[in-house]
Amino acid sequence: MSRPAGAWRHHPQHRGHMWATSPAFRRQLVLLRTLLPPHPAAGSSSSASSSSSLRFRAMASSAVYEADAEAVIRRITPPLDRARHKGQAGKIAVIGGCREYTGAPYFAAISALKVGADLSHVFCTKDAATVIKSYSPELIVHPILEESYSVRDDERVSVSSKILTEVAKWMERFDCIVVGPGLGRDSFLLDCVGNIMKHARQANIPTVVDGDGLFLVTNNPGLVEGNPLAILTPNVYEYKRLVQKVLNCDINQEAASEQLTTLCQKIGGVTIMRKGKEDLISDGKTVTQVSMFGSPRRCGGQGDILAGSVAVFSSWAQQFVLANEQPTDKRVNPMTLGCIAGSLLLRKAASLAFQKNKRSTVTTDIIELLGKSLEDICPAEH
Amino acid sequence: MSRPAGAWRHHPQHRGHMWATSPAFRRQLVLLRTLLPPHPAAGSSSSASSSSSLRFRAMASSAVYEADAEAVIRRITPPLDRARHKGQAGKIAVIGGCREYTGAPYFAAISALKVGADLSHVFCTKDAATVIKSYSPELIVHPILEESYSVRDDERVSVSSKILTEVAKWMERFDCIVVGPGLGRDSFLLDCVGNIMKHARQANIPTVVDGDGLFLVTNNPGLVEGNPLAILTPNVYEYKRLVQKVLNCDINQEAASEQLTTLCQKIGGVTIMRKGKEDLISDGKTVTQVSMFGSPRRCGGQGDILAGSVAVFSSWAQQFVLANEQPTDKRVNPMTLGCIAGSLLLRKAASLAFQKNKRSTVTTDIIELLGKSLEDICPAEH
Repeated sequence: MSRPAGAWRHHPQHRGHMWATSPAFRRQLVLLRTLLPPHPAAGSSSSASSSSSLRFRAMASSAVYEADAEAVIRRITPPLDRARHKGQAGKIAVIGGCREYTGAPYFAAISALKVGADLSHVFCTKDAATVIKSYSPELIVHPILEESYSVRDDERVSVSSKILTEVAKWMERFDCIVVGPGLGRDSFLLDCVGNIMKHARQANIPTVVDGDGLFLVTNNPGLVEGNPLAILTPNVYEYKRLVQKVLNCDINQEAASEQLTTLCQKIGGVTIMRKGKEDLISDGKTVTQVSMFGSPRRCGGQGDILAGSVAVFSSWAQQFVLANEQPTDKRVNPMTLGCIAGSLLLRKAASLAFQKNKRSTVTTDIIELLGKSLEDICPAEH
Repeated sequence: MSRPAGAWRHHPQHRGHMWATSPAFRRQLVLLRTLLPPHPAAGSSSSASSSSSLRFRAMASSAVYEADAEAVIRRITPPLDRARHKGQAGKIAVIGGCREYTGAPYFAAISALKVGADLSHVFCTKDAATVIKSYSPELIVHPILEESYSVRDDERVSVSSKILTEVAKWMERFDCIVVGPGLGRDSFLLDCVGNIMKHARQANIPTVVDGDGLFLVTNNPGLVEGNPLAILTPNVYEYKRLVQKVLNCDINQEAASEQLTTLCQKIGGVTIMRKGKEDLISDGKTVTQVSMFGSPRRCGGQGDILAGSVAVFSSWAQQFVLANEQPTDKRVNPMTLGCIAGSLLLRKAASLAFQKNKRSTVTTDIIELLGKSLEDICPAEH
């Protein structure tokens, strides 16, 4: 799945009808069909989806299929086995939080716990740490990042090295890291985080990149290039900048899925979830969408919930694919499954929160309903 | 709408009966009638008000009309369009929060979110920032203001300039700013905030001035003079000082609406909401009141809720008036509509909070009921 660093080749763009009939598409389709039978214990809510695991929808110029996201969640969510011990349901770390932003890393980290991870860490600046700790005693918060204003020029190299050493000694323990929520734009801090991303990659740690992490990656695509364990989750603006930088053109709404496929192929290996009215997910081979309506509220912070949730689901999906006996399952991209699951769960929780709180819905309200949303889809006792 | 700086002309005071028959009054009346038909989907609660959009009440010496504030809220509140994205329902900033006061800016900023804004920022001192952040991860808090005690005399100019630069780079993003909640009285800090107000004015950002911001403006009325996008929300004491300073006389309870009109005209262009048993609102042309009873509890912080709510409603009203096809609507002052809406919403939420919590009602209880109050008036699904 990996490509040599620097291999920025341009792949020919697949036309929709060509893609729909290509061997790669058909294979991926078979794999997903194999993966997504109705779950035996999922209850009546799955009956609608069980008759057809994948539903097709014709888009302007490219084949996009609607994921049966509920079935994905049911398959990849691990059973709550009494014999399991702390950490086995997931250890997540969020790299983010600076003097200016503290809410975003908190939202991502607490969401990971609410989805079902056992441990959730935050690596942030000293200024942010006290505040993030005060939001919740559930999180483990490491005050180790630094911004330019707190580092003398002649100390930069040694401080940067020390930060990497501190994070590195934890890295192997994590099942997934989230880079970017509330990271800010400080150049020294972003340099350090770039080094952390390189280290995570060497250690084969799946990495979700969101928020200011996407600013970093857009300016330095080599950080994720050819990394099949990297997931980018850009919103409208972030996606636009990424397309401009990598494809050197503007967004093409008429051929959205083709452009997304091309973008993934050009970066090479990564999975991208283009957030919007429908979330479009591609790893350069197929394009899946999740379009269940969530909430009309657009309060800031929902992207952070998504990033934390995708981190947990991706690590679960990876375990599921590795453990599964059927050889077909091994060829499904777990990063794609993680994105599908995270997208649906956020939409469902946002929908429930909006039903309850209407216009006054804020991000915390949505987080509080992650648990119920997951339980509705995938009962803990199944 | 603007007037040259320094144009402190004295306008002849309208007598009540003259005003009631003046062309300006009649025109404004027609405009508000045009604006306020019953909303089709507002439910039965609107039936009482729909029969008569404006009800009149004779005051001692001037015509004041009772706004149909529910109808105003229903008209200016934007529909929750599924195609909208983050930020389009409003981005608000509160300038306030110092070593002594942290609750007030939090109340104003969180109220903006609960009314329905997408993003809410606070610009405060470093001392205040950690605490305000810890109240809620929903807010984006910038620790950039400084008080005299933390700035050496020889640094004042450079620090002041740096603060303005920091705030200025965000300013264009905001739909409205609130100046004053928990600002304190430190002279250096107030000087900096005066510069921020001048910048906001140049950038045409609507500005709600409350609390210590009114102390600043009372001592320097030029900061808002001739600014049609400025709203002052004085309580009894703040209004008294403003009248003394600008009109050089004491409060005249017998001719309250005339005096308010004269005050608006003398300052020029601004909208003033004189808070009290009835909230009197004027832009120098008409005087509207909102008199629905709220709560007998007078716990501190309700003015901050009001300021944050007025900021959101004013920005919505501005969009509504700009977008509306009817030429009459374009001539209604959106700042007046924002005040009317904010006044009613606070009163309704305070009333619900008091029914529930009686003597123990505090500001947080009221904020928690902003959502239900708005939903009762203007259902999200309409």
